[in-house]
Amino acid sequence: MQSPFDASAPIVGIGNAIVDVIAESTPEFLAGQGLVPGSMNLIDSDRADELYDLMGPAIETSGGSAANTMAGLASFGGAAAYIGKVRDDQLGEVFGHDMHAIGVGFDASPGADGPATARSLILVTPDAQRTMNTFLGISSLLSPEDVDADLCSAAPIVYCEGYLWDVEVAKDAMLKAMHANVAGGGRPALTLSDTFCVERHHQELLDLVAGPIDILFANIHEAEALYRTEDLDTIVARVRTEVGLACITRGAEGSLLVTPDDLVEVQAQPVEELVDTSGAGDQYAAGVLHGLVSGHDLATCGALGSMAAAEVISHYGPRPRHSLAELAADLL
Amino acid sequence: MQSPFDASAPIVGIGNAIVDVIAESTPEFLAGQGLVPGSMNLIDSDRADELYDLMGPAIETSGGSAANTMAGLASFGGAAAYIGKVRDDQLGEVFGHDMHAIGVGFDASPGADGPATARSLILVTPDAQRTMNTFLGISSLLSPEDVDADLCSAAPIVYCEGYLWDVEVAKDAMLKAMHANVAGGGRPALTLSDTFCVERHHQELLDLVAGPIDILFANIHEAEALYRTEDLDTIVARVRTEVGLACITRGAEGSLLVTPDDLVEVQAQPVEELVDTSGAGDQYAAGVLHGLVSGHDLATCGALGSMAAAEVISHYGPRPRHSLAELAADLL
Repeated sequence: MQSPFDASAPIVGIGNAIVDVIAESTPEFLAGQGLVPGSMNLIDSDRADELYDLMGPAIETSGGSAANTMAGLASFGGAAAYIGKVRDDQLGEVFGHDMHAIGVGFDASPGADGPATARSLILVTPDAQRTMNTFLGISSLLSPEDVDADLCSAAPIVYCEGYLWDVEVAKDAMLKAMHANVAGGGRPALTLSDTFCVERHHQELLDLVAGPIDILFANIHEAEALYRTEDLDTIVARVRTEVGLACITRGAEGSLLVTPDDLVEVQAQPVEELVDTSGAGDQYAAGVLHGLVSGHDLATCGALGSMAAAEVISHYGPRPRHSLAELAADLL
Repeated sequence: MQSPFDASAPIVGIGNAIVDVIAESTPEFLAGQGLVPGSMNLIDSDRADELYDLMGPAIETSGGSAANTMAGLASFGGAAAYIGKVRDDQLGEVFGHDMHAIGVGFDASPGADGPATARSLILVTPDAQRTMNTFLGISSLLSPEDVDADLCSAAPIVYCEGYLWDVEVAKDAMLKAMHANVAGGGRPALTLSDTFCVERHHQELLDLVAGPIDILFANIHEAEALYRTEDLDTIVARVRTEVGLACITRGAEGSLLVTPDDLVEVQAQPVEELVDTSGAGDQYAAGVLHGLVSGHDLATCGALGSMAAAEVISHYGPRPRHSLAELAADLL
C-alpha cells in the first residue's frame, strides 16, 4: 500500500519535557497523600520537594508523554523529532542525551535560567498503576519561539499532548505547530492525556478536536469526559464528524480505530507480567503513528499500537526497552 | 547464638557517593572505546561527556559500592549509616534522597561548590556484565573532616571501599574511620573493589589488610592480584594470618569464608535470569555483614550473601528491589 505521507520527514512531537522519578508505592501511601490512583497531578516546587522526601528510593529516566511517543517511533525505525523545553541542569542533560541516543531530533538549546527541568514523581502501586505528580518547571515556559514552523510544516504529523494545555503560553506554541502542520498538508494529532486534564480544559479541547486536530488519541475515560457521555455509540458518532481518525483505547479490552466511514476493533496484546503501566498510551500512539506513516491499514496500525503498549508495560519506565522494529518484524 | 556486636549501632559504610547512569551496550562498543569488559575505569569530566554522548539511552539510579552495601543492610532491616560526599546538584539530591528513603543514615551536607556529584557510566552487555566508567567529581574530595569519629567508634563494623584508595585525601578519611572503629572495639572491613584498583595500590592495600583491616571482601581475581598468586591454598593461608575473616567470592562457584581456624564453602544461589551483575559483590557483602551483626554462623552469613547477590543480579541496578528481610525470613 502506498503511504500518503512523506516517510523521510520526521513526525514531530510537542510536549512537556520531563524526567520521570519512579518509585514503588502503596495504595495506603497514595491515600495518605490524598492522591487519586492513576491520576496526573500538577504540583509546585515545594510540594515536589515534600513528596520526594516522603517517597521511596527511585530511578530516574526520561519521560514526557509526547517525548515517550517519539522515542517509540524511533524504536520502530521511524523518523521523529521533538519540541520541548529543558534547563541546562543535570536532569535537562539526561533528557537531551536520551533523545539523541535514541535517534530523536531535539535541537532546542537548554534554558540558561528560570525554573529547573521538569520532573514527575511517579508512584507505582502493586497493581502496576502509576500515579504521577508533575512539577512542570521550565517545560511550562514553552513558547511559540521554541516551535520550528518549517519542521512542523514538513512533518506528516505533529503530535501534541493535551497536558500542554495546562500552560497558557504553551497553547500558542501548540497552535503555531498545528497550523504550520495543516499548512504543509500534515495531519495534526492530539492525545487527551488524562481525564482531569480534559476536565480542566473541556471546552478548549473540544474546540481543538473540532478544529485543527485530524487524529485523536484518547482512552475511553478521556473520550467520555470530552463528550460528557458514557455511550460509546455517541462517542463514535461524534468523533466521526470531527476528526479523520480517532483511536480510543480501552486497556485490556483493546482499542477502537474510528474514521468517518470505518471502525476497526483491535485486541490488546496479552503480557506475561504487568509491571508498570507508565507509557502504555504513549507507546500505543507510537505504534499507530508508525503504522500510518508506513502506509499500513487501520487494523495493522492498531496491532502495532497494541504490541508497543504490551512491550512497555512489561517493565518499569515509559519507553521501549526492546527494539520495536524487531518486534514489528515478527508481527508483520 | 549471641551476637558479639551491639546490634543497635549502625554499621558505617564509607566510599565514593556515585549516581549510576546505566545503559545497554555491546562488546563491539566496548572494544571501539578501548574498554576492558567488566572493568572500572576512572574518567575525567571531558571523557565523561564524550562517552555519555556516545552511549545509549540510560536510567539513573543511586550507586557507589559501599553505599549499595549500606542500602542492602537497610533492606535486611539492619542499622546502617554512610559517609560520602555529594554536591548540591540534582544528582546529589537523588543520591541523598535514595539513602534517606531506604533508611540509611546520611547526614553530610552537600558541597556548595567544587566538582559535580560523581557519576558512573555503566555499560551493560548482553552477558549481563557491567563495565564502569566513573567520573569521581566531588566524591573524591572526601576528607577526614567528613568522618564522624564518634559514629565510626560506636559502629560494630566500618566498611570501606578499596576504590577510595584512588584518592589521596580520602585515604586519610578512611584511616581515620578505621582507627576510630578499632579504638571503639569494632571490626574494620575492606572490599578490594576491582582488580585494577588492587594493581594500582598494591602495596598500600597489602599493608592495610595486614594492618587495621579485620574483615576482607574480595573476589577471587582481586585476591589473586593482592597476593600475586593463583594458588588458592596460598591465598587462604595468607588471609588466615592477616584478617579475622576473609570472604572470597567466585561468581557462580560461590564463595569461601575463611577465618584463622575455619573455612566454610558457600554455594552461589542460582537465578532464573541473569540481567545485570551490578551490585553483586556489594549485596553479597551486605548479606554477610548482616549475618555477622545478627550473630549467625559463617555458613548462614555466606548464604545470606549469596541470597542478596542473587536478588540484585536478577534486575537492573545495584540495589535490592525486593525486601531482603522478607527473602531472609524464607531462608532462615
